[in-house]
Amino acid sequence: MHIGFIGLGNMGAPMAHNLLKAGHQLSVFDLNAAAVEHLVGAGALPVDTPTAIAQGNAELIITMLPAAPHVKSVYLGESGLIVNSRPGVMLIDCSTIDPHSAREVAKAAAEHGNPMLDAPVSGGTGGAAAGTLTFMVGGSDADFERAQPILAAMGKNIVHCGAAGNGQVAKVANNMLLGISMIGVAEAMALGVALGMDAKTLAGVINTSSGRCWSSDTYNPFPGVLDNVPASRGYSGGFGSDLMLKDLGLATEAAKQVRQPVILGALAQQLYQSFSAQGHGGLDFSAIINQYRKDT
Amino acid sequence: MHIGFIGLGNMGAPMAHNLLKAGHQLSVFDLNAAAVEHLVGAGALPVDTPTAIAQGNAELIITMLPAAPHVKSVYLGESGLIVNSRPGVMLIDCSTIDPHSAREVAKAAAEHGNPMLDAPVSGGTGGAAAGTLTFMVGGSDADFERAQPILAAMGKNIVHCGAAGNGQVAKVANNMLLGISMIGVAEAMALGVALGMDAKTLAGVINTSSGRCWSSDTYNPFPGVLDNVPASRGYSGGFGSDLMLKDLGLATEAAKQVRQPVILGALAQQLYQSFSAQGHGGLDFSAIINQYRKDT
Amino acid sequence: MHIGFIGLGNMGAPMAHNLLKAGHQLSVFDLNAAAVEHLVGAGALPVDTPTAIAQGNAELIITMLPAAPHVKSVYLGESGLIVNSRPGVMLIDCSTIDPHSAREVAKAAAEHGNPMLDAPVSGGTGGAAAGTLTFMVGGSDADFERAQPILAAMGKNIVHCGAAGNGQVAKVANNMLLGISMIGVAEAMALGVALGMDAKTLAGVINTSSGRCWSSDTYNPFPGVLDNVPASRGYSGGFGSDLMLKDLGLATEAAKQVRQPVILGALAQQLYQSFSAQGHGGLDFSAIINQYRKDT
Amino acid sequence: MHIGFIGLGNMGAPMAHNLLKAGHQLSVFDLNAAAVEHLVGAGALPVDTPTAIAQGNAELIITMLPAAPHVKSVYLGESGLIVNSRPGVMLIDCSTIDPHSAREVAKAAAEHGNPMLDAPVSGGTGGAAAGTLTFMVGGSDADFERAQPILAAMGKNIVHCGAAGNGQVAKVANNMLLGISMIGVAEAMALGVALGMDAKTLAGVINTSSGRCWSSDTYNPFPGVLDNVPASRGYSGGFGSDLMLKDLGLATEAAKQVRQPVILGALAQQLYQSFSAQGHGGLDFSAIINQYRKDT
Repeated sequence: MHIGFIGLGNMGAPMAHNLLKAGHQLSVFDLNAAAVEHLVGAGALPVDTPTAIAQGNAELIITMLPAAPHVKSVYLGESGLIVNSRPGVMLIDCSTIDPHSAREVAKAAAEHGNPMLDAPVSGGTGGAAAGTLTFMVGGSDADFERAQPILAAMGKNIVHCGAAGNGQVAKVANNMLLGISMIGVAEAMALGVALGMDAKTLAGVINTSSGRCWSSDTYNPFPGVLDNVPASRGYSGGFGSDLMLKDLGLATEAAKQVRQPVILGALAQQLYQSFSAQGHGGLDFSAIINQYRKDT
Repeated sequence: MHIGFIGLGNMGAPMAHNLLKAGHQLSVFDLNAAAVEHLVGAGALPVDTPTAIAQGNAELIITMLPAAPHVKSVYLGESGLIVNSRPGVMLIDCSTIDPHSAREVAKAAAEHGNPMLDAPVSGGTGGAAAGTLTFMVGGSDADFERAQPILAAMGKNIVHCGAAGNGQVAKVANNMLLGISMIGVAEAMALGVALGMDAKTLAGVINTSSGRCWSSDTYNPFPGVLDNVPASRGYSGGFGSDLMLKDLGLATEAAKQVRQPVILGALAQQLYQSFSAQGHGGLDFSAIINQYRKDT
Repeated sequence: MHIGFIGLGNMGAPMAHNLLKAGHQLSVFDLNAAAVEHLVGAGALPVDTPTAIAQGNAELIITMLPAAPHVKSVYLGESGLIVNSRPGVMLIDCSTIDPHSAREVAKAAAEHGNPMLDAPVSGGTGGAAAGTLTFMVGGSDADFERAQPILAAMGKNIVHCGAAGNGQVAKVANNMLLGISMIGVAEAMALGVALGMDAKTLAGVINTSSGRCWSSDTYNPFPGVLDNVPASRGYSGGFGSDLMLKDLGLATEAAKQVRQPVILGALAQQLYQSFSAQGHGGLDFSAIINQYRKDT
Repeated sequence: MHIGFIGLGNMGAPMAHNLLKAGHQLSVFDLNAAAVEHLVGAGALPVDTPTAIAQGNAELIITMLPAAPHVKSVYLGESGLIVNSRPGVMLIDCSTIDPHSAREVAKAAAEHGNPMLDAPVSGGTGGAAAGTLTFMVGGSDADFERAQPILAAMGKNIVHCGAAGNGQVAKVANNMLLGISMIGVAEAMALGVALGMDAKTLAGVINTSSGRCWSSDTYNPFPGVLDNVPASRGYSGGFGSDLMLKDLGLATEAAKQVRQPVILGALAQQLYQSFSAQGHGGLDFSAIINQYRKDT
């Protein structure tokens, strides 16, 4: 299939590569010329503007952008993807943005006759390269069915979350819980160790008890408890604290719009904001445990 | 073996029954005469005071009491278990108390020549009846080895957590994380549903993503997501909110003694305190989600 | 002076009246025809659109609008106040919005040759009617001097807070502190009373000690401590909880933009969000104490 | 009058000096021999034990001790002040402890026929030296009347807070509010400055608006806003962060005993606990603003 792809950053570039590998024809755009060249070297066709991608022959257009303002700017307005696409061309936004904005764009697409899905991902740059991303997808049943084979070229777990915007809802809810859990594990591990317990032994108890969670059994923040996690390599790699901060900001913002209290979620946001303000935003988000350990 | 057992409440009574079933001889004490009679009906020997149990022939004494003041009062002082026991008699306290008090009592026992273990449990009254409790045990390797067969008559998972007091440390750290996780799941589920998502679908996403945790995949607080959990029967049964409040109080108190910050832990304590002050302390602790749902 | 006035709501209408009383000529606009008629009855000239006000003869235009999107929509774009005003006409926005938006609009005004001030108020509808508002003003020294006599017709305390946007900064910082203080007083009063102390006696101690603050000595949330405050008339009148919630939202949003942690501020926002979600958003913001009192 | 005085630390020593200056006869005890000598040099009589003070001729005994365990140990038990005092001798405890313990001791005193007051102070070592302390007094009207002239020799503001324990209630409630207010001011000042405002200008607005409070107008934590406060001399002197941490611990503990939620209070405690764990417990409590300022 001829696919347009806009946004060739750390996530978008490997996703586009996987589409090429799966045999699709790709027209690509990014503001960064080097990123475009890299994809062209792998067989993609460079296009000068998002508008030109919309005006071309692509049957489906995928976007992977940093935040809601970029998404609105690329999709909406006179030079936007929507008004410049042929009706029927499917639009898939893989950016992580707030559900409200996702629904606003999807509504504009529907009015122009373009099926649209919001399909934010989890799995990080590693998952993007390996083609093992999870896609959380919002949109109609029919559109989801149609898009699934395309998404399956880039990910392993393609989950239909309901109507437009619900992909973003699922991501924002899951990641808020993730931020809370990680800080919870950090506090529990730091407390146990401060009270004289061995970290591995404590993690062992937690992982077979009611405190069990992904942040403890798969991504433990205490150094040395697990191999091959950021905590055991100086908190490099992984999912950056500033990315967690962004997602917690989306969660509290979405909560504000529906007057839904998220008390621990808001506190988690502030704790990551404090961590970031201290200059640690580039460390993996499990490094938040350093705020709780006296010897660090 | 001849075992003394003190404290025949909701947890202690079924634990004592399981020891009888395993063929042990039991001398029992409780302030509640009916509780004693019930055990006597099953073959136990009634004893008038804890002191008399210590002065008897039991080779091992187990206590299951409500809080630290009861434990100190039963073990310490002139009529306490320690000074009235023969040196060598093993003492096992299964109460959930703060690590500091547990260590104070263990030290007094050691000085009198009595091996002692702190062995708080998890698994609730159901686990106590079925003999499937988890024991988190603090004490020496040798004492742990010696006690294991006895504990195995009452539980399934017997974990050695390190030196004296570490059983309490493990329990307090795990349960603090549990309280945080449960509120985190409550906030995430309530937020997702308020933003338009189906609760079961959202739980499905979380349970296969990085937000995965026991509070979501095994004990989900949203009604109808899981069968056979308190959320699906009006929050009856299970682990009461007031018990969670007690454990969070132990966690923040233990943290205070070592000047260890537990920010989400302290907030979780206050949220359960607020829930309890509203008169809901008897509901299962997953009912905290009602604080977040507009329609409840 | 001939003044244009846009936004004749609960605050704007009495402010406009005071300008008429001070002898100014007023051209007014509001979407609500009844609000316009009321001012016309007092001598104002009705104008059909904000654009027409800009294109008229007013030497100065004042706006009093609900939120940033309204402000941007009225000031910016092709039909906005800025491009349709003669250069030199002064623009004063009295709305409470985020500092970032205020600066964006002020910059556009400057580029078109229009001096602009952000001048949010405090003092409520009572202060607006009595002409005793406080104005927190951001803009140049010269512009502040020029605007002062006009603002003095509507308020008593006209404070220059520095360059453009700083009026909003001052308001957002003060009101975030106000929200925190009010909840702090609520917790302290409720705790003292729960521990057996008389509310008036406790307030007396606090008001002469280091806990002294406006929320205690001027606006105490405990019923019966002060006369003539919302707490002593069922929390009616005053400054609504939903307005406090809005201001706390502005504070955390502004903090997010500069990655500044506001931990108690964010928690205060969530506590008001919870209060509002329970249906109490219309009560005075001191009613938050009801969340802490068992007998209410 | 012949007065017994136990506890000659940073606060107790200058208080005892002021009693001597007022012409009273003093029998003193402290574990620290140098502290005793110092008072003896000023005319006091040294006594070997608290018990001996009780057994002497003092008509009134004052204690100023670090925490509840010291108070209980000095007052209760066989060698305690209560059983060893003649009935009718008045006992005044100026220590800051939890209301529950204060009431327990007062009850024991009453049973032995000794009138007792809890009379914690505020005003710091400066106020103790200058004789300008505030005393928050719990006890009967008659006992308060009788003690007032004695307390007036050490303080300026002697407030009757109600029955036994209420002096502690007032102190604990006021100081919890103080801790919350100080962090609130720190967040508001740091936020305003991060958004581009001058600190003195912002404090000026707050101090004449609804955010006005002692922590801002009398003890502002931002360096340079006020002269003669710890913030303007590197946070030395003043009221130490560890003392604030102790008082917040008393507040949350007292709240726990009556199941009273104190959400901001508990969070303030954790923030000071974190500050102390970082090694800053010796700095004045206004230094908490350093947790919020990027350049510090």
